[in-house]
Amino acid sequence: MKVLITAFEPFRGDAQNSSQLVLESLPERVGEVEVVKCVLPVAFAHASEEAIAAIERVRPQAVVCLGQASTRACVNLERIAVNMAHANNPDNAGAKPCRQPVVAGGPDGIFCKLPVDDLAQAVRAAGYPCAVSNTAGLYVCNTLYYSLLHRYADVLPVLFVHLPYAHQQAAAKPAATPSMAVASMSDAIAALLAAISAAER
Amino acid sequence: MKVLITAFEPFRGDAQNSSQLVLESLPERVGEVEVVKCVLPVAFAHASEEAIAAIERVRPQAVVCLGQASTRACVNLERIAVNMAHANNPDNAGAKPCRQPVVAGGPDGIFCKLPVDDLAQAVRAAGYPCAVSNTAGLYVCNTLYYSLLHRYADVLPVLFVHLPYAHQQAAAKPAATPSMAVASMSDAIAALLAAISAAER
Amino acid sequence: MKVLITAFEPFRGDAQNSSQLVLESLPERVGEVEVVKCVLPVAFAHASEEAIAAIERVRPQAVVCLGQASTRACVNLERIAVNMAHANNPDNAGAKPCRQPVVAGGPDGIFCKLPVDDLAQAVRAAGYPCAVSNTAGLYVCNTLYYSLLHRYADVLPVLFVHLPYAHQQAAAKPAATPSMAVASMSDAIAALLAAISAAER
Amino acid sequence: MKVLITAFEPFRGDAQNSSQLVLESLPERVGEVEVVKCVLPVAFAHASEEAIAAIERVRPQAVVCLGQASTRACVNLERIAVNMAHANNPDNAGAKPCRQPVVAGGPDGIFCKLPVDDLAQAVRAAGYPCAVSNTAGLYVCNTLYYSLLHRYADVLPVLFVHLPYAHQQAAAKPAATPSMAVASMSDAIAALLAAISAAER
Repeated sequence: MKVLITAFEPFRGDAQNSSQLVLESLPERVGEVEVVKCVLPVAFAHASEEAIAAIERVRPQAVVCLGQASTRACVNLERIAVNMAHANNPDNAGAKPCRQPVVAGGPDGIFCKLPVDDLAQAVRAAGYPCAVSNTAGLYVCNTLYYSLLHRYADVLPVLFVHLPYAHQQAAAKPAATPSMAVASMSDAIAALLAAISAAER
Repeated sequence: MKVLITAFEPFRGDAQNSSQLVLESLPERVGEVEVVKCVLPVAFAHASEEAIAAIERVRPQAVVCLGQASTRACVNLERIAVNMAHANNPDNAGAKPCRQPVVAGGPDGIFCKLPVDDLAQAVRAAGYPCAVSNTAGLYVCNTLYYSLLHRYADVLPVLFVHLPYAHQQAAAKPAATPSMAVASMSDAIAALLAAISAAER
Repeated sequence: MKVLITAFEPFRGDAQNSSQLVLESLPERVGEVEVVKCVLPVAFAHASEEAIAAIERVRPQAVVCLGQASTRACVNLERIAVNMAHANNPDNAGAKPCRQPVVAGGPDGIFCKLPVDDLAQAVRAAGYPCAVSNTAGLYVCNTLYYSLLHRYADVLPVLFVHLPYAHQQAAAKPAATPSMAVASMSDAIAALLAAISAAER
Repeated sequence: MKVLITAFEPFRGDAQNSSQLVLESLPERVGEVEVVKCVLPVAFAHASEEAIAAIERVRPQAVVCLGQASTRACVNLERIAVNMAHANNPDNAGAKPCRQPVVAGGPDGIFCKLPVDDLAQAVRAAGYPCAVSNTAGLYVCNTLYYSLLHRYADVLPVLFVHLPYAHQQAAAKPAATPSMAVASMSDAIAALLAAISAAER
């Protein structure tokens, strides 16, 4: 099984993005899963088109998109993407959409086709804190997720995963900022890939 | 330099205590610091007497006490202990003191003699989230801290450190529960020991 | 303009439900808005059918559903309902659905047709903390919201509002539990009704 | 019984201070307690000297100092003040002390002499969320509290109370910011005064 895993570059003044740190620390192979990596720009207009280009090139059997969410305390599997793009601050390309549809005429929301609750349980059983989230927000993460869920519908399973800050990032943030170790998040994603592989078999 | 490091056993229904997990993962030597380990009972009446027995036996140049605090998101160095022992739930020996003095006639509060703000900065500089806390609570942690600060005053530096849950513990807690990797907390304590060693030199 | 406002009865061991307290303290008329009140059971199988019966009877020009959300700190206008019913604890009728569709064959998500961001801004401008939320959860609140948004689509505007605990409820909860005054929440809902009335005119 | 109640002026860019709003909404008399009001500057060098001047002038039987704490969700009665003044941002007079003693040679901490746990229980029994806090921080609030507890020791009971933001302030803050209604905080302080009056009788 071949899985494309995407992450995002740093944004909004941060020097690092926990999703990129985790992507880089993932091995090339997890059990029988071949991991293909791709870093995306934090840009409403370009993230999904670069992801789609990678999918067309790589032809994976599943896609796992990683993104950083500064207030989450554990690995968050996103249940749904919504057809709205909004930014309170410009993305890395300077765009600042105001509640625009991601796909004109698309449905309001699209569920992930993978069994996210079972996958989260598998990650927890492996010893890593993990939960299902019911909102991926309205920023670039959600736009990427919605675009891929809309385009690939039932032909390719896509899952978006929000990650907390890495410990080294939280070292420069307020004391109440939750974080996880990159190695632990990487192991959690490996456990997730094994569970996806088992679920898709 | 020889440092005694204490941790606590599990309590209140938890199968593990993050302080004990971190203690066990610490090496026997950190730079020029010799580490001597001691696990204490979560008991108002016994924790400090066992710690004092260990101190008399080991004759360390500093004492670092570790404890678990379920709501903290990073390594917390405690600035002060207060002369009050209180429990909302019984300790592991069944005791449930109600706002009693830790030491009859002792001062209301006793500051840590180590430069906690500089130590926290050193741990952050090493890449681990760390802050100074102004309250160690009123439970066994504070009673231990107060007892040692009161007894050893200026003759032996003592520091209490509150640690978040370990990731594997948070895997069984609500999604918003913050946690840290045991390996990262252990490395953070190693960085702390190096900084204490430098400060005491 | 006639608006039906629903609230929920107490559930899960609480003696009160903040939504019901707020409903009871609302006046019968807010500016040119006639307020018709209805208390619903916290039951997946009955909440929406009772709401629909009230709508058919009252023939309102808009529906505002109030519900209590224990972790919210301000008035939350819900942007979207999703086609999933799930409970970790039984509802007041003993039902405990496990990720079932609310409406078989319905779309995954349905946006509120009202301009929720403008409405939230109007409530804040009136001096009450208010935000738009992107998830109404998976419990009875979301099931009610989804059922009404699905049934009434473009013919009747429906908005779900999550409220924090009332101060008197938080008096018996942990110290970090956020809450609002019933009188303030009631005034916030009045400001919301005025804004809905202006938006629908 | 005559009680001096102090509050603080706005600081750090805020247009209002919840403690001042609550002070202004308090009646001149609560049961048999005569309330005398005094607004203090947010200044390490001046807050306590102005409070002391008011105490010498008013000759109260108790002093209750109110202050705003942006992260608290309920009325917080402070158990202890510590002998350290520190600011991460300048106070209203431009001072930014760095871990200086409040009173040179003073004890590290001084407990409030009032039965804070019983008082908090009385406020909760009146229907307002209230808890005892074990740290008043290191900013001007703590400096004022320490100065008064140190100076008046056993001759005059002094209590510091931290209040959340008022709802109207939270309307301009992030959605997770807790707040309380000014009227409710004022009623909570009235319940506190009644309980102090009963305790001192």
